[in-house]
Amino acid sequence: MAANGTNSTNGVKDNNSKFDPHFTQHVIGLMAPETQPRHREILSSLIKHLHDFCREVELTQDEWIIGVNYVNSIGQAYKKNRNEAWRVCDVLGVESLVDEINHKIATEKGIEPTSSTILGPFWSPDTPFRDLGASCVLNMPADGQLTLFHGVIKDAETGKGIQGAVFDMWQASTNGKYDVFDPEHQLSNNLRGKFRTDENGKFWFYCLKPTEYAIDTSGPSGDLLKLMGRHPNRPAHIHMMVTHPDYIGVTAQLYPNDDPWLETDTVCAVKDDLLLDFKPIQNDPSGATLDVEYDVRLLSKKYKPDSSMLMGNANQNNF
Amino acid sequence: MAANGTNSTNGVKDNNSKFDPHFTQHVIGLMAPETQPRHREILSSLIKHLHDFCREVELTQDEWIIGVNYVNSIGQAYKKNRNEAWRVCDVLGVESLVDEINHKIATEKGIEPTSSTILGPFWSPDTPFRDLGASCVLNMPADGQLTLFHGVIKDAETGKGIQGAVFDMWQASTNGKYDVFDPEHQLSNNLRGKFRTDENGKFWFYCLKPTEYAIDTSGPSGDLLKLMGRHPNRPAHIHMMVTHPDYIGVTAQLYPNDDPWLETDTVCAVKDDLLLDFKPIQNDPSGATLDVEYDVRLLSKKYKPDSSMLMGNANQNNF
Repeated sequence: MAANGTNSTNGVKDNNSKFDPHFTQHVIGLMAPETQPRHREILSSLIKHLHDFCREVELTQDEWIIGVNYVNSIGQAYKKNRNEAWRVCDVLGVESLVDEINHKIATEKGIEPTSSTILGPFWSPDTPFRDLGASCVLNMPADGQLTLFHGVIKDAETGKGIQGAVFDMWQASTNGKYDVFDPEHQLSNNLRGKFRTDENGKFWFYCLKPTEYAIDTSGPSGDLLKLMGRHPNRPAHIHMMVTHPDYIGVTAQLYPNDDPWLETDTVCAVKDDLLLDFKPIQNDPSGATLDVEYDVRLLSKKYKPDSSMLMGNANQNNF
Repeated sequence: MAANGTNSTNGVKDNNSKFDPHFTQHVIGLMAPETQPRHREILSSLIKHLHDFCREVELTQDEWIIGVNYVNSIGQAYKKNRNEAWRVCDVLGVESLVDEINHKIATEKGIEPTSSTILGPFWSPDTPFRDLGASCVLNMPADGQLTLFHGVIKDAETGKGIQGAVFDMWQASTNGKYDVFDPEHQLSNNLRGKFRTDENGKFWFYCLKPTEYAIDTSGPSGDLLKLMGRHPNRPAHIHMMVTHPDYIGVTAQLYPNDDPWLETDTVCAVKDDLLLDFKPIQNDPSGATLDVEYDVRLLSKKYKPDSSMLMGNANQNNF
């Protein structure tokens, strides 16, 4: 990969520029020979795109200073449970793009597993297993709509149900809050649960119809949204992380197909095959008023033997 | 300018990509119709280059998280007299590039004024005027080399000296510190002075041969330098800001032509026409042991009527 350090599209642009055509290569060339190849590759591309951006818009000094101050403000807004750089990336579509880059699996036969989308910051490693048919609603809000959620986890290639796959789900309550940020109203692990599929790959449980919520707009990410004339709303969603030892896992968010924010999700994480159709039901033994069916397609690990689910270095704080 | 929102080089890249070819345009398209044209232009280009960067290097999630943490760390390192985002830009060559973008003046006749380079953070609006022939060395360090600096400020087109032009200069002492950061050893305005050219455009004064120094490497900008295997040194330099009401001003740094760091300046601000040749002299009435001659070429304001010297919004903290 490092060998493609020159990239022809930008090279051409540079040469036709009215500015010093050698400057960007000069800066890249300052890297020492012993720089690690992956660092060199990433930083070369970063420098090239950063310079091309400046030249393309002919950034003024005033605008550059605004940018410098903006970058400083991101880290200044950082605090526990508020990762502002992460949020800015989300607003710019970067988390969603990186998710696609890392999880897109194109098989030669055109077999398509269920799409992946961003994990988000609220997954918990401590979510308990619950029995099939159990409810993850430990605290029922007055405006909650109890939903019977069911489906099959299938092999994307054969269509056969996968026994023993784990459907790990989590969602916010109707006030837009996850259990950890709402201890007054929610028990720990409210609206979280892991369910293991039966011999036919089936799983079923009770949850809430999810509710849309707005991201916090008080910091630099909110300023960026305002500048772009964008709203801060995320479509309602239920998170899922589906795993099985023999299959490539899928992490995604599932959205009601009638949500008003599907097209304009503030973090750009909606995909066509992640929509849910909530249907009214009557006489459910647990009192559910809605029913939703969603099947998950997993791809065998033979297509990506080194796949792993989580981010090993998520807490690393430097290069 | 906003009309060129599509940029063919990146457009082609997008379409040939193995990733969703519509994603970047989707994110750009979230901007509201009432977004200001310049904001739209800058953010469209920024989003496009940021996404192209991620796709080009196929950024992993771990690497993205490292980047998120790095961006947060920049603002966390910010304090009075430590603008870490500015430093990171300098290391990546961005300040120098933005300076070129804003000050490159190409005349039809190929007349070239003296190159501009970065202002840096140490210019002072309070520097006093001094008489021609005066010394700006208020505190002579033991290892200082007193230098007679002289030259002519000329019209770049006619070659004629310009009367009444101002040569505003500032430099660090031999310990690498500017007056404001070194009150124990330096009086206020030590090594700073403004000199007004005589009727022939000539100016002359005494200063020190400048000394190279290293930028502070204790923060994220230093981490970035280490990652790239780069040293933190700036070549020795004397700053100048040259102005006259009828001419386009020039801000630059002048470097001894025998400095070891010219090629690898950590902030990438050296240009070929900004080099100084220090020559030994004897019997100078003020005791100078070195002589340097440097002429400055200014271009008439008729070539850029709206030119201005300083950054009006330098203290603005948001978009």
